[in-house]
Amino acid sequence: MPELRRDPITHRWAIIATERAKRPTSYRFGSQEPTEGLANPFAPGNEHMTPPEIVAVRPAGGYPNDSSWTVRVVPNKYPALRVEGGLDRRPMGIYDMMNGIGAHEVIIESPDEHAKFHSLPREHMIDVLRVYRDRMKDLKRDCRMKFSLLFRNYGSASGATITHAHSQLIALPVVPFEVRELCNGAKRYFDFRERNVFEDMIRFERAEDRRVVFENNDFILIAPFASRVPFELSIIPRFQETHFEETSDGHFNNLAEVLSFALGSLDQNLGDPAYNMIFQSAPYDSGEMPWYRWHIQILPKLVNVAGFELGTGFFINPIAPEEAARVLRKRN
Amino acid sequence: MPELRRDPITHRWAIIATERAKRPTSYRFGSQEPTEGLANPFAPGNEHMTPPEIVAVRPAGGYPNDSSWTVRVVPNKYPALRVEGGLDRRPMGIYDMMNGIGAHEVIIESPDEHAKFHSLPREHMIDVLRVYRDRMKDLKRDCRMKFSLLFRNYGSASGATITHAHSQLIALPVVPFEVRELCNGAKRYFDFRERNVFEDMIRFERAEDRRVVFENNDFILIAPFASRVPFELSIIPRFQETHFEETSDGHFNNLAEVLSFALGSLDQNLGDPAYNMIFQSAPYDSGEMPWYRWHIQILPKLVNVAGFELGTGFFINPIAPEEAARVLRKRN
Repeated sequence: MPELRRDPITHRWAIIATERAKRPTSYRFGSQEPTEGLANPFAPGNEHMTPPEIVAVRPAGGYPNDSSWTVRVVPNKYPALRVEGGLDRRPMGIYDMMNGIGAHEVIIESPDEHAKFHSLPREHMIDVLRVYRDRMKDLKRDCRMKFSLLFRNYGSASGATITHAHSQLIALPVVPFEVRELCNGAKRYFDFRERNVFEDMIRFERAEDRRVVFENNDFILIAPFASRVPFELSIIPRFQETHFEETSDGHFNNLAEVLSFALGSLDQNLGDPAYNMIFQSAPYDSGEMPWYRWHIQILPKLVNVAGFELGTGFFINPIAPEEAARVLRKRN
Repeated sequence: MPELRRDPITHRWAIIATERAKRPTSYRFGSQEPTEGLANPFAPGNEHMTPPEIVAVRPAGGYPNDSSWTVRVVPNKYPALRVEGGLDRRPMGIYDMMNGIGAHEVIIESPDEHAKFHSLPREHMIDVLRVYRDRMKDLKRDCRMKFSLLFRNYGSASGATITHAHSQLIALPVVPFEVRELCNGAKRYFDFRERNVFEDMIRFERAEDRRVVFENNDFILIAPFASRVPFELSIIPRFQETHFEETSDGHFNNLAEVLSFALGSLDQNLGDPAYNMIFQSAPYDSGEMPWYRWHIQILPKLVNVAGFELGTGFFINPIAPEEAARVLRKRN
């Protein structure tokens, strides 16, 4: 059973998940190597290599765990957290811990092992986005879960161990400190100015037009003013919605378009870099918050995070966001 | 001039330092490669390749910028921050920014380009530690500086671009959010229990003896209970001292011993991994705080930080600290 352990000073939780050390990578004390030469557990025909599916999209019909799917969701075989059991929050001497309860799912985004997410046909991409939303919404029904994070690790430098297109969804029994801080920060701005910070950012960025990379009627893609890493990108909805899982189907065509532009531009202009993509949504237990809006962060992995960043939370970024936007606006 | 830019929601600062993109690495949009084939600017005889030295140790005598040094401190040639000028804190539309004022120094720890820090003779290592302390103390005199971080990036995976043994010191005009949180967390514990959290940790860890790796009369080396990454280590002083820069010479022999054990054990037991080492000291502007104690964090870079960690601040660690301690206790 994984354990959630709390740092006695910062109160940040760490997940100690020793079963993940058993992943079929050349794992010598944690080194990560792509699983070259091993069978691909996400390929059609290999459905038996994953735990039984939770849900799948089968436009032409078919049966659970057959190979007729176009999008497939399975539990992570080496989960960071377990769904079964109670939290059993307890002391351990002077420390605090609880059982590693939570969900850890994998969304396999295409049956084609060479497909790139951003090059999927528009309708297929919309199916994937609907699956993201529906899984987040479904996990919200489990009252032990307080927050979920949908994320995509692309490329081994970003922590990905399998190259076949996939994203992951983790639901947690606690709201992470950083997520609370994000909501609190947006609230602070709202209380001070009586305006929504996301709305103000969109207005200012459109007026200045130095960091806008792309926009459509529903979304804006920007290189954030205080970008932490070179070529960081944010996708912000132009409509008010606190939770990603409450977003209606009507927005998904435009979301697919902006995602496709963002990830396609990184691929084309920076030579297919590794990246992490994060859907920042509000905690499950918060209602509608007029000061907070879900949004997407994309962090290309072009430089290694070093000691200064780890010690301070300050990032040193050698590429100005204005320059990043200039480069990433160009697409054939 | 580098810029400090503040995120409008989280209030975290990013340093936009475009001159660092000019470092002589094969820098295509930020990719970091060791500078193989280029002359080593830290080698004796190449003193002209760095800015003029700030201070150096010359046990056998000599002159500034000659090659008779054993430890040498120079300004970083590609600094993240500049020493000259005023902060000029100002708005930029809805955002906040200021000039990137600060110090960025490099401590070259040995003239031998193949020397490993942890294998330096004890007296030499003590000289290095004294230089760390004295530089931090000297920068404290500049009243624009609020905090400094001493850190060591070892190996290219940790962000190091030069292999010759060195550490870095950055002084900042603001106290980073994470540093304030660390002090606040220790204060919260002190207020609740009327005891110092570091003292309690030392007592509990010694009694349990499952995560202690090494100790001497002045320091304890542990695998922290809520370790974020595999084989994370903490060095905690067994005496009360808020600021590293106020630590007296009498402790440096034991500090050299525990550092040498910790880094030597990583080298020997994990096959010379990359790591980041951070000296967490209190802000310059805080006085003595009976609840806070400087300490050292060592984070081996065996796995890549992925989207989940970036989105939540939660770390997933596949190696239990108890197992890490068992492995790292062994030294020939």
